Order: sequence, then structure tokens, then C-alpha cells
Amino acid sequence: MSKPKSQNIHWHHGDVSRADREKRAGHRGVTIWLTGLSGSGKSTIAHELDKRLLARGATTYVLDGDNVRFGLNKDLGFSPEDRTENIRRIGEVAKLFTDAGVIAITAFISPYRADRDRVRSIMNEGDFLEVHVDASLDVCESRDPKGLYKKARAGEIPEFTGISAPYEAPLNAEITVNTGEADLETCTNTIINYLETKGYLFDLPK
Amino acid sequence: MSKPKSQNIHWHHGDVSRADREKRAGHRGVTIWLTGLSGSGKSTIAHELDKRLLARGATTYVLDGDNVRFGLNKDLGFSPEDRTENIRRIGEVAKLFTDAGVIAITAFISPYRADRDRVRSIMNEGDFLEVHVDASLDVCESRDPKGLYKKARAGEIPEFTGISAPYEAPLNAEITVNTGEADLETCTNTIINYLETKGYLFDLPK
Repeated sequence: MSKPKSQNIHWHHGDVSRADREKRAGHRGVTIWLTGLSGSGKSTIAHELDKRLLARGATTYVLDGDNVRFGLNKDLGFSPEDRTENIRRIGEVAKLFTDAGVIAITAFISPYRADRDRVRSIMNEGDFLEVHVDASLDVCESRDPKGLYKKARAGEIPEFTGISAPYEAPLNAEITVNTGEADLETCTNTIINYLETKGYLFDLPK
Repeated sequence: MSKPKSQNIHWHHGDVSRADREKRAGHRGVTIWLTGLSGSGKSTIAHELDKRLLARGATTYVLDGDNVRFGLNKDLGFSPEDRTENIRRIGEVAKLFTDAGVIAITAFISPYRADRDRVRSIMNEGDFLEVHVDASLDVCESRDPKGLYKKARAGEIPEFTGISAPYEAPLNAEITVNTGEADLETCTNTIINYLETKGYLFDLPK
């Protein structure tokens, strides 16, 4: 057996820095936090962003109900405390992805301003981009892809955002896109242009 | 205003597949789960792996007490239930990173076999690699980098793994490294060689 070089090895903090990861990735780590009513187009925009940024070589990931609600947050229900804890955990996970140099895109209604502001507050300046996916209730209800508005109107879903529970629109979102007025490509371009202009994609090919 | 192309946009599942992300990364997403006594060298190995794999262009990230205990799991204490929930959440986050095509390296004592097996059970076959960072209690206690063993022996830390609480060694770890018998480079090589041999690093330059 070879003699260990040190009997007292311990963690040397910061062996790999976030800047190292970002240099490798060609872009900054960042959280793109989409918020808006059910049916406003958050998931569609998230996955379109994901696809277009990956095609340029970015490291991206979408956090949404599909991969969070039945995993990390499967112990949480829909009480006010559980909704807050749901958003808190998603924020913490998005922060980890951001620290890893990933472009994390979250697609949750996240109706309460205080919950979103709490996520912003745990992030470094510039790491959290709030995107208001704006579309009128009429537009969202007319889409109703999962039939949820219909159920909510029938009283089958209690506390449904926009119908029987409030949606608190962002007051100072970095980006607003209106999917009732602009098409998917235009909305996605708006977000990518923001990232370009602000230098997030500092070394990604066009 | 341009007319939206569709009033009924919704998520098209699987726009970007995991395979797409892995192709871009040049390696598979995987969780390398380091388990072992306090002072066994988990964090040191984790950060060395991180550094060496990043140098080859991999997308990697270390989850450890520093970035998890004061963030995602800051609401958890050290009761048996909280310890189990701590590992459950870390497992779920590691799963998300793995799905994102990242090489996620976790460095937690994770002393209970049932907790580790539960993490394994939520992952796809081959996505979870258990690495036993083996070192005798004597070796770990002689290192005692944070003075924790001394405090535990003095009765100042209750339920300290290896002293007053059990460590359940893995029965079927994919990899075992003994940091009391081999140096850091050798231990790290063992893990990287495993990844190479099993095809995890399918398109990373040497």
C-alpha cells in the first residue's frame, strides 16, 4: 500500500469557481423565472428557450411541475404554507443550478409577489430574471389546454389562480412578454435579446 | 399587434431530450454519491473530481453541506426524520442535475443504508453510482480537521456518526476507495477510470 500523501486532507474551498464553470459554458449561470397565469404560455416559452439556447451550445434546464411536483416537492400540498414552501425550494434549486453555471428556466404560476421576491433575495444581483408571461385571463381561459379553468369555474378546483385566488403581477419584472399579443417566436426573442444585450451569453455562437 | 400563431399553445413534451443534453455535454448525466465517515475525505475527493472533470470540459457540480444545509435544507435539523428528509431532498436535486446532463457529485456522510437505497430507487439504472469513501474510524479521528471527533468524544455533539451513532457501510457500492491507504490522486483515478470504462465520458477529450 502506498503511504497517503496527507493524513489530514480537507476541503480546499473554491477549487473550481463559478467563473470557471461559466467560462467553460460560454455563458453566465442565471435563473429565468417565468411567472403568469395557468395557460399563459410559461411552459411553452420555457421549452422553446431551452431548445434554442441548447442549439447554440448553452447548458440549460427547465424546472417545472413535471419534474418538481412529483419529486422534490411531492410531500407538499396546496395550502398557503405548502405553496410558499414549494416556491422556496424551487428557488433554492434554481440557485444551485445558477451557481453550477446553468441557465435555469422555471415555469411555475408563482402567483404571490412575496414568494417571488424571497427567491430574488437569496440570489446575487443579476442572477434572477423575473419574466412576466402576461396574457389576459380571457386569453388564458379561452386556451384552457388542460380544462382547468372549466373545472375551476364549476367550483371543482378551489383557490384557482385568476378565478378564486389572486395573481399578483410583478411590479418590476426584468422582462414582460404578452403571449396574447405576440407569437411564441417573438416572445422568446425578447428574452434571448435581453440575455444578449446584458452580456449573459458572452461566448455563445449566434 | 401581430396576431398570435396559436391561441392554444401548450407544452410539447420532450422538446429537448436528455440525450440531446448529454450529446452536447460529451458525457452522461450521472450522480456520484460519496458516502463515508466525517473526515474520510468525501469533500476533498468531490472537489478534486470536479476540478479534473471540468478541466476536460465536463459539466459538473458538487452538492455538499456548504450549499445545501444553509439553503434548500435550512429548515431541517438533526432528528432522525429530518436526516432522512435531508438525504431525500439531496437525492431529488441530484436526480434533477443528472437529468440535466450534469455530473452531480454529492458529499454527505449519509450514514443510513435505507436512505441511500431510497435515493438509488428514484434514479434510473446506472444514474446512481455509490462510492464508499472508506477510511477507518482511527484514521478519520486522527485527521479530525474540524475538531468534531474531539467534541463528540467529550459528549458535546450528540449522535455523532461513528462515535455515538451508526455508520452503515454500503453492501454493494459501485466503487470503494480507501483514503487511509491510497492518496487523493489514486482515489480520484479509481472513480474516473470507472466512468471511462463504463462509457459515461463517451465524448470527453482525455
